[in-house]
Amino acid sequence: MKIEKILNGIVKKNENKILLVVMDGLGGLPDPETGKTELETAVKPNLDSFAKAGMCGLSIPVLPGITPGSGPAHLSLFGYDPIEHQIGRGVLEVLGIGMEMKKQDIAIRGNFATIDKNRTVIDRRAKRLPTEENRKIVEKLQGTIENIKNTEIIIRTVKEHRLAILLKGDNLSPYVSENDPQKEGLPLKKIIPLKEEAVYTAEVLNEFVERVEEILPGMDTNAKTILLRGFSGIPDIEPFEKRYLLKPACIAGYPMYKGLAKLVGMEVIDGLETIDDQIQALKDLYSDYDFFYLHYKKTDSAGEDGDFKKKIAAIEEFDEKISAIKHLKFEVMCITGDHSTPCLLKGHSWHPVPLVIVSKNSLSDDVDRLTERACAKGILGTIQATSIMYLLLANALKLEKFGA
Amino acid sequence: MKIEKILNGIVKKNENKILLVVMDGLGGLPDPETGKTELETAVKPNLDSFAKAGMCGLSIPVLPGITPGSGPAHLSLFGYDPIEHQIGRGVLEVLGIGMEMKKQDIAIRGNFATIDKNRTVIDRRAKRLPTEENRKIVEKLQGTIENIKNTEIIIRTVKEHRLAILLKGDNLSPYVSENDPQKEGLPLKKIIPLKEEAVYTAEVLNEFVERVEEILPGMDTNAKTILLRGFSGIPDIEPFEKRYLLKPACIAGYPMYKGLAKLVGMEVIDGLETIDDQIQALKDLYSDYDFFYLHYKKTDSAGEDGDFKKKIAAIEEFDEKISAIKHLKFEVMCITGDHSTPCLLKGHSWHPVPLVIVSKNSLSDDVDRLTERACAKGILGTIQATSIMYLLLANALKLEKFGA
Repeated sequence: MKIEKILNGIVKKNENKILLVVMDGLGGLPDPETGKTELETAVKPNLDSFAKAGMCGLSIPVLPGITPGSGPAHLSLFGYDPIEHQIGRGVLEVLGIGMEMKKQDIAIRGNFATIDKNRTVIDRRAKRLPTEENRKIVEKLQGTIENIKNTEIIIRTVKEHRLAILLKGDNLSPYVSENDPQKEGLPLKKIIPLKEEAVYTAEVLNEFVERVEEILPGMDTNAKTILLRGFSGIPDIEPFEKRYLLKPACIAGYPMYKGLAKLVGMEVIDGLETIDDQIQALKDLYSDYDFFYLHYKKTDSAGEDGDFKKKIAAIEEFDEKISAIKHLKFEVMCITGDHSTPCLLKGHSWHPVPLVIVSKNSLSDDVDRLTERACAKGILGTIQATSIMYLLLANALKLEKFGA
Repeated sequence: MKIEKILNGIVKKNENKILLVVMDGLGGLPDPETGKTELETAVKPNLDSFAKAGMCGLSIPVLPGITPGSGPAHLSLFGYDPIEHQIGRGVLEVLGIGMEMKKQDIAIRGNFATIDKNRTVIDRRAKRLPTEENRKIVEKLQGTIENIKNTEIIIRTVKEHRLAILLKGDNLSPYVSENDPQKEGLPLKKIIPLKEEAVYTAEVLNEFVERVEEILPGMDTNAKTILLRGFSGIPDIEPFEKRYLLKPACIAGYPMYKGLAKLVGMEVIDGLETIDDQIQALKDLYSDYDFFYLHYKKTDSAGEDGDFKKKIAAIEEFDEKISAIKHLKFEVMCITGDHSTPCLLKGHSWHPVPLVIVSKNSLSDDVDRLTERACAKGILGTIQATSIMYLLLANALKLEKFGA
C-alpha cells in the first residue's frame, strides 16, 4: 500500500489508547417481511449512542464486490493490504483450531479419503466420517508417526474428514504439489517439488502418506489415505508493534481470530470463553496495553445460520455488555465488522460494513444509529477498511506531519 | 488492477442474468435559465422507478477531473483499467466506421493533404475536401492498390479529409514513425521503423505513400498525398467470457460501440438501427446470453450539440422504451452512462455519472430519482466506474469468497 512508503517516518508513540471493536459479520440486508435489516431492527441504545457521539461511515473490506474470508477481512482492519498479504489455506486451518505456528513451519490442510487397492480415489471425504472417528485415527497416527527424516509431524482433527497438519523442521518449503487428484476415480498423485528448495519437503510428505496408508488398513474406518493441500508458511507481515509503535492485546474467544492477531504480532489473551470474560479482560488489562482488539463472534454465527432473530439477539446482547466499558477512557474507539454476514445470504458478503469512530479529535456527524443505511450518510463516507487503522492512529495523535 | 490478482480464483458461473444499460453521455449540468440539469428536467417515470427500487450512486469514468473518450469510458464500464489498456487512435478510427479488425492487423488514421512538387506540406487537410470527393478518391486508390509486398491494404473513407487504413499480413508492427510533419510548410517525413521488428512495415508504408502520390495527380482534387498516424494493433485484453465466465451480447446500433464490445470479446448483434430494434433484440435474445450491454446513443449526440431540449427528449424517449423490458427477469440491472456530456459544455466531461443498480441482494436507499444530485446521496456513494462490473457480478452471486 502507498501509506507504507511514509508510515515509518511519521508514526510516534504516546499515551493514548485505542479500542477496535470487531462485531464479526456486522452488516446485513432487510428481512423481506419487515424491510428492515438486523441492525435496523435491534434495540441497541449503547451502540447507537456511540454512533451519535462519533463519526460514521461504511467500510469496504477488500474491494467493491469482493466477499472476504475472515483472514483477508481482518488483515484489512489491522491496516495491511489483504491482497499483497495472502494467508495460505493451511495456515488458516491450523490457526482456526488454535495450533501454534512458528516461522519456518509449514501448515497443511488434510482430508481423510477412501482409495482402492490400486490407490484410485473412491471417496475424497472418506464418506465424511464422524469427527469422533477422525479423533481416534489421528490419535493412532500421531502415536505412531512423530517424525520423518528429522521433520516433526503434528496432526490434529478439524472435523468430519478434515485435518490440520503442521511440519516443523529445517529446510522446509511450501512449494510442493498436492497429492489430491481433485476428482474421484483418478489415482492418487505423487507429491512433487515445484521448486528446487522443496525436494526434501516432498520426500517427507510422500513418506508421510505411505506411512499413513500402512497404518489405516488396520483400523475399522473408510479412511484409507490422506489428501494434502494448501501447503503454506506464515506470511511475511511486519509486526503490529514495530509498524505502529503500539502495544496491542487481542481480546478474542475463538481460535481463528486469536491466530490472526498472532500473525500480526499481537499479544493474545487466553482463556476468554464468553463476552463477559472478554469485557472483564478489557477492564483488567486496560493499563497494560495501548491498543485493544475486541472480537465478538455471535453476530457472524447467527448470520451464517440465516437466523434473523438470533442475529438481532446477538446485537442486543453485545449492546448491553459494551455499556460496561463506557467509563474506561479510550481516546479513540472504533466499532465495526470485518465484513457483512446478512441472514438473507447465510454467509459472508461483499456489502460495505457499518463503521463508527468515536474521537474528540474529529468532527461528529448527524448520524445517530449504527445501521447500514444511517452510516451510509455519515461524514466518513464509504472507505477502504485498510484506511481505518490509520484514522485511528491519527485520531489518537500518533501520526506526525508528513513533509514540511 | 488489483482485482485481477484474485478474480480468476473467485469468479463462477450461474444462471443469473445481468443487464448493463449505458445511456451515452448521461450526466449533465444545469440550464442557466432553469437551474436544472437535463435529467432534473426530463419527465422519466420508468427510470426514476428503477432509482427508487435500487441503490444509487455516482461513477467516476477514469479519474477525478479526467474527461474520457468513448474508448476508455467503456473499458471502465466493462471492468478493465482504461489507463493500463489504452486503445490506439487507429483502432478507434477503424472501429468507429465498423471495419472488422483481427489480431496482427495494424490500424492507421489517415488524412488527405496537399503538398507541392518538393513534397512540402501546403495543407494538412487538403482544404477539408468534401466527403463525397474523399469517397471517389478512396475508390480509385483501393481499386489500384490492393496489396504491397504481400500486405493487404484496406482503405476506407471516414469523412472530409479523414481516412481509416487497415494493414493485413504477417510480421506487421505498429512501431513506425508518422510521415506527418505536424506543421504546414515543412516537408513530408519518411516513415522509419522505431523498432527492429518494424522494418518491413515501414517499407510497406513508404511504398504505399509513393503509390498514392503517383495516382492522385491524375485526379481533380486538392488531395496530393496521405498523412499517416495512430498506428496501432488490437490491445491485448482478456476476453469478457474468459474473465467473467459470462456469455455477453452487445445490443448497440453505432459501429464504435459494437467495435468496443468486440474488443472485449462480446458477441455483437448486427442490424439494430433504432432503439426499438434494440429493445426487441433484448427480448428475442433473452434466453441466449447471461450478460447484455445495451447502448443508447441519443443522449450523447444531443449533449454534443449543446441542445437541452433534444437531450431531454432523448432521455424521455428512452424512458418510454425501457418500460418494455420491465417484465424480463434480470437478477441485476444497472443503468448508467459511460461519461457525462453536459449540453452546457457541448462535449464529454469529467463529471461523475449517475448510476443505479437494481438487485434483490443489496440494500436499496431512499433516492427516488435518476439525477446527478439525487444519485450523489445514494448508498453506493461515488465509485470508480471500473468497480461497477464487480458489483454487478457480486449481486448476481457470481463471485465466491476470497480467502478463508
